[in-house]
Amino acid sequence: MARVPRHRRLVLPLLCLLFQGATALLFAIFVRYNHETDAALWHWGNHSNVDNKFYFRYPSFQDVHVMVFVGFGFLMVFLQRYGFSSVGFTFLVASLTLQWATLLQGFLHSFHGGHIHIGVESLINADFCAGAVLISFGAVLGKTGPAQLLLMALLEAVLFSVNEFILLSLLGVRDAGGSMTIHTFGAYFGLFLSRVLYRSQLEKSRHRQSSVYNSDLFAMIGTIFLWVFWPSFNSAPTALGDGQHRTVVNTYYSLTASTLSTFALSTLVSGDGRLDMVHVQNAALAGGVVVGTSSEMMLTPFGALAAGFLAGTVSTLGYKFFTPILESRFKLQDTCGVHNLHGMPGVLGAILGVVVAALATHEAYGDGLQSVFPLIAKGQRSATSQAVYQLFGMFVTLVFASVGGSLGGLLLRLPFLDSPPDSQCFEDQVYWEVPGEQETETQRPLRAVESDTQA
Amino acid sequence: MARVPRHRRLVLPLLCLLFQGATALLFAIFVRYNHETDAALWHWGNHSNVDNKFYFRYPSFQDVHVMVFVGFGFLMVFLQRYGFSSVGFTFLVASLTLQWATLLQGFLHSFHGGHIHIGVESLINADFCAGAVLISFGAVLGKTGPAQLLLMALLEAVLFSVNEFILLSLLGVRDAGGSMTIHTFGAYFGLFLSRVLYRSQLEKSRHRQSSVYNSDLFAMIGTIFLWVFWPSFNSAPTALGDGQHRTVVNTYYSLTASTLSTFALSTLVSGDGRLDMVHVQNAALAGGVVVGTSSEMMLTPFGALAAGFLAGTVSTLGYKFFTPILESRFKLQDTCGVHNLHGMPGVLGAILGVVVAALATHEAYGDGLQSVFPLIAKGQRSATSQAVYQLFGMFVTLVFASVGGSLGGLLLRLPFLDSPPDSQCFEDQVYWEVPGEQETETQRPLRAVESDTQA
Amino acid sequence: MARVPRHRRLVLPLLCLLFQGATALLFAIFVRYNHETDAALWHWGNHSNVDNKFYFRYPSFQDVHVMVFVGFGFLMVFLQRYGFSSVGFTFLVASLTLQWATLLQGFLHSFHGGHIHIGVESLINADFCAGAVLISFGAVLGKTGPAQLLLMALLEAVLFSVNEFILLSLLGVRDAGGSMTIHTFGAYFGLFLSRVLYRSQLEKSRHRQSSVYNSDLFAMIGTIFLWVFWPSFNSAPTALGDGQHRTVVNTYYSLTASTLSTFALSTLVSGDGRLDMVHVQNAALAGGVVVGTSSEMMLTPFGALAAGFLAGTVSTLGYKFFTPILESRFKLQDTCGVHNLHGMPGVLGAILGVVVAALATHEAYGDGLQSVFPLIAKGQRSATSQAVYQLFGMFVTLVFASVGGSLGGLLLRLPFLDSPPDSQCFEDQVYWEVPGEQETETQRPLRAVESDTQA
Repeated sequence: MARVPRHRRLVLPLLCLLFQGATALLFAIFVRYNHETDAALWHWGNHSNVDNKFYFRYPSFQDVHVMVFVGFGFLMVFLQRYGFSSVGFTFLVASLTLQWATLLQGFLHSFHGGHIHIGVESLINADFCAGAVLISFGAVLGKTGPAQLLLMALLEAVLFSVNEFILLSLLGVRDAGGSMTIHTFGAYFGLFLSRVLYRSQLEKSRHRQSSVYNSDLFAMIGTIFLWVFWPSFNSAPTALGDGQHRTVVNTYYSLTASTLSTFALSTLVSGDGRLDMVHVQNAALAGGVVVGTSSEMMLTPFGALAAGFLAGTVSTLGYKFFTPILESRFKLQDTCGVHNLHGMPGVLGAILGVVVAALATHEAYGDGLQSVFPLIAKGQRSATSQAVYQLFGMFVTLVFASVGGSLGGLLLRLPFLDSPPDSQCFEDQVYWEVPGEQETETQRPLRAVESDTQA
Repeated sequence: MARVPRHRRLVLPLLCLLFQGATALLFAIFVRYNHETDAALWHWGNHSNVDNKFYFRYPSFQDVHVMVFVGFGFLMVFLQRYGFSSVGFTFLVASLTLQWATLLQGFLHSFHGGHIHIGVESLINADFCAGAVLISFGAVLGKTGPAQLLLMALLEAVLFSVNEFILLSLLGVRDAGGSMTIHTFGAYFGLFLSRVLYRSQLEKSRHRQSSVYNSDLFAMIGTIFLWVFWPSFNSAPTALGDGQHRTVVNTYYSLTASTLSTFALSTLVSGDGRLDMVHVQNAALAGGVVVGTSSEMMLTPFGALAAGFLAGTVSTLGYKFFTPILESRFKLQDTCGVHNLHGMPGVLGAILGVVVAALATHEAYGDGLQSVFPLIAKGQRSATSQAVYQLFGMFVTLVFASVGGSLGGLLLRLPFLDSPPDSQCFEDQVYWEVPGEQETETQRPLRAVESDTQA
Repeated sequence: MARVPRHRRLVLPLLCLLFQGATALLFAIFVRYNHETDAALWHWGNHSNVDNKFYFRYPSFQDVHVMVFVGFGFLMVFLQRYGFSSVGFTFLVASLTLQWATLLQGFLHSFHGGHIHIGVESLINADFCAGAVLISFGAVLGKTGPAQLLLMALLEAVLFSVNEFILLSLLGVRDAGGSMTIHTFGAYFGLFLSRVLYRSQLEKSRHRQSSVYNSDLFAMIGTIFLWVFWPSFNSAPTALGDGQHRTVVNTYYSLTASTLSTFALSTLVSGDGRLDMVHVQNAALAGGVVVGTSSEMMLTPFGALAAGFLAGTVSTLGYKFFTPILESRFKLQDTCGVHNLHGMPGVLGAILGVVVAALATHEAYGDGLQSVFPLIAKGQRSATSQAVYQLFGMFVTLVFASVGGSLGGLLLRLPFLDSPPDSQCFEDQVYWEVPGEQETETQRPLRAVESDTQA
């Protein structure tokens, strides 16, 4: 390997130290425990029976945390020579995002008395923001260095938080599992960013942009944890009781349907009738994305199956036919195919939310209308106008994502950020000390042992 | 590879689409949210303090989901060239099973007013059925194609649900963690099915029916998650309070004892005093199976240790001595050794349940008798007659499993189901696009990078 | 390989059987279900609203169980030829420890009426003890056989339990997440033990004391689960409500900061500006260790960031500069670098606990003082004297660990325990049947398939 230029030795650590110093300072000034978390503010008497939720957020948080880190972290390990970076940079980028999102979301949602007040719910929300950033990471995987990713996270967390605030707080849009705020936003932010960073000479690294047998199995760890924990992810911010249960049930069945349609379509579209592991790793999960908005609503079990089936179909077809066109026609290089797993299913999920919201009636929801559509329950909105707001929320998200991602791309072209050269994309050795090859290493000791004991 | 025959390109997708279409239709007609899940039916006022259980099923469900998918999914990745199929077909088969079991169990358990009513408990029960199907999958692993497995799941889910209904609802048998309904049923269904599908020419694929270093480590992911989540699995359907706690405690200690006996026996029976990874991957888990029936009962902590120790011993001896005999004498090819991990320990667990039920007294259980043995508590049964019913339940299960598995074997011999030829068993390439070899692929990019940077 | 001497074939199984027999006997005599777990002792009426905790310990237990087994188990798989032993012996050693710790902790904490009374909380405490033993295992990884490890576990569990009892019950020290009782104790016990077992000829096995690409990825499974579940680990024994929430929040942020400082420092200290996977696998986790004592206290969110940042820094510098010195100057061979991940951050965490305890005021804690510092709340101690007790607790721990570890080293030098020879350290084949090499095995079947189908 060529020597690493001197400046690289400094850019990444300086950015880490600078950002960590800044967020720590802001934490010192602004961040305080909220009344669920502060020893002096908590009183058992304050918490009625229903406030059992103060505990229930805790297993929900832990499940979301698994989903984001184990799931997204390992899903990206599929590249043959980029496993260290995939899982390592996931930690790096997500750690900064969690701190930074806490500040941004805190200023927007829980700032009073000069302080941000945080608790376990803040952690769930910060994890959601990290999820969006990791989705964007998937679009540029292998083509960006860690310093670039830190800047991306910084910008994306701001826009994510503002977009989420506009949708949830200003527009009264419902989006518990984040079809819009997480998946659509994260995917199109990453895709526009990747478009700006288009590499015409990426062919030089193409031989590394594929999996090997074991890297595909590692990636299946990510897939399986995402599949298993998606019900918890979508239901984490919903109302306890029926809301949480309904979200879990809908997400569960949607995922089973997207898995079946993925296997059907993957076989149908392949040249020789064989399954493609890329589809199973990704499209099988589209059922979780597509009900992100509507799973807390009265989607019905059949609706969940239909939605999941559609999402798996669209996602598989996207991998087969759309991704190559995106690259050849639109100069959009999407390493993980986030357009197929998060982009299209996210938009579909937003539209599904529009439809299900439009169908909301007092009969169907009863007293539960208050927690799912509070503005309809209070008579401030009709179901139709809620649906229009939902649709508007989707467009706001697309605007934020596309403008933000484009700006992000320009930002990441700053020369000192040490982007990998075209011939060294998808390669861990650019950023990591990589140990020797397994083949040689495992044979040598074996022989050593043998000669050792024969002697 | 030979060309894939044209019909294969259509059988799997057509079955997926057909089954998904049929279950979706049945969902549309019959399946509705239950009162815990429906927005209009839920009222906080309905739920007393004890009804906290409506939340508590949620972490239980999530744990069972992890156990079934991560655990059983990865445990089967041990074959050197069958990892894609093991974990991929787990998704495929389990997804169909979850939908189908929801319908079947719903008709039997929660059908009223013309509808099936589902909630988070339905998901746990469907996951249990998927567990049984995945156990049967283990017996035929590598020797059946995905279309065959879908048919197997369809039939097995029916018989599982009927058998479970007869045991739990008609006979009043107790079997929280499913020593009988899940493990015994799943194992013998798979074994009889495998017997009918006996391949006399399997030698042609024998060189692939073994592990390599990394595939064994992947399989240990499955083992470790099964080991860790088994207490949740066994306790998921038990009564909250002491019932759930007792089940967790008993399962935990039983697993520690089966681990110790597995290590002891594995060393003792090996030719040269070395441990066999197959034993550790499997027999160490037998302690979870063997207390499936009795862990909610007053088994005592010592009883849990003794049961686990016995199960680990029997299971390890089974792998060493019994599996070869099953194949040579009884023409029974059991790829994962499910007879050793689920079959014998399951039957042992059923018998242990008979014994512990026979010893039940009002003194030992106090008020708790109501939730563990409601029929004894109501005076409708003596402890002895409960024990007789337990024993009868085991025989019913064995009959259902053996007759069902045999029928299943005949069904799977339908010629259009595209079974792999004898020479291509245990081989992913039959059904999957498999990426190039690690050895070559990882060396090429390395050299490329080097020459690249030297230039 | 040379023949395994006849005595080895007997030492391990005999120890397993002996120890299992002895603990089972003690279980039969002494261990009974406690009132949360026994059918006859549980009454809903006994449990007020606050006693919801009887359920809440259940998800906490499950999370701790994941952390200890998946986390510590897979973290040690990084060695190229020691994966079977790392994860296999984790099961073996931890299984014995869980049983043995139940007895020891039971005698010290819940012995009345001639019996030990156990429940789900006992499982959490036993898991904590297993965590300490697995930390010590990390120091001697690859240099000790399974029989030695069983003896180590036996001794260490005794000293762990006594030390914990002295700190928590006699001295009134607070240490929820175990900076002292788990990490400091486990690390220095292992380090002193390793010192006594110093091998001057370890060079003969040095070529095996490194990772390969896939073994590093397997180890990242451990890292990621430790990172994700550490908030649950630290909060498992804390008071419900604000205590548990605060611990979760503090641990979460501390880990993000240690991750950022690890990436900064790893780049800065490397020769060529590249990241070292060893740092990311380990030092990134130091933030969880360092707040083990103080995370239940009013550490403040900023305090959590600062502590984590410091811990990541110290830990990374330790791997780079201190570990080589420990070996060359102090003859201390520390395979996993537990001194850097658990030793130094554990001591730092203890000192942090001293400082935060000294700063405790009635204003800052309000009513919560009762659950965090009950002796201060009752007026039996000032904050300063609590701080002194905390500091004293740390020294007691260091004494127990160093004396105990040294004794343990002498014990493990007993000749019949079958320690691996200097030339066969870090090698699975000494204790396991290891399957053939991937390279050969995966190529053979491929060719077989090809010729098969060409024919």
